[in-house]
Amino acid sequence: MEAAINTLVNQFKTFAGNDGSADTLSKEELRSLVSSQLPNFVKNSSDPAVIDQLMSSLDQNNDGELTFIEFWQLIGRLASKHGGFSQ
Amino acid sequence: MEAAINTLVNQFKTFAGNDGSADTLSKEELRSLVSSQLPNFVKNSSDPAVIDQLMSSLDQNNDGELTFIEFWQLIGRLASKHGGFSQ
Repeated sequence: MEAAINTLVNQFKTFAGNDGSADTLSKEELRSLVSSQLPNFVKNSSDPAVIDQLMSSLDQNNDGELTFIEFWQLIGRLASKHGGFSQ
Repeated sequence: MEAAINTLVNQFKTFAGNDGSADTLSKEELRSLVSSQLPNFVKNSSDPAVIDQLMSSLDQNNDGELTFIEFWQLIGRLASKHGGFSQ
């Protein structure tokens, strides 16, 4: 499990470091991460409305950037759905 | 990232299936998972007080079982700490 967790942390950092704050994801960084890393878990990621909706549902402090913990909620939601757990 | 997420889901299911409810972790299942899967991220997991404290901090509805989403908060906290993100 630790290797899998490290993979998620390192991928987050890779995408978060593309522009602006190195520790948070902008909407463009989220789009890039989702389309390349989560192609089966998030459908239609090329649709701007899909990314807009994801961003607004996750960005709890509404600053246009996702922290790691905000991002973690997204992948938890995807993992729970994919694993067939009740929500 | 999807492979890493699947690893976490599948490991959770493996341990959750050991006794009782197949979709939740009892304290004993949590202890077993933490000691075998998270030996570097959770120190002193052989100390019952460590597992008691983890369980009580995560089991939000206080039913003695951790759902996948409750467990996800634990690994998010560990990942955030390990990744050096501010809490």
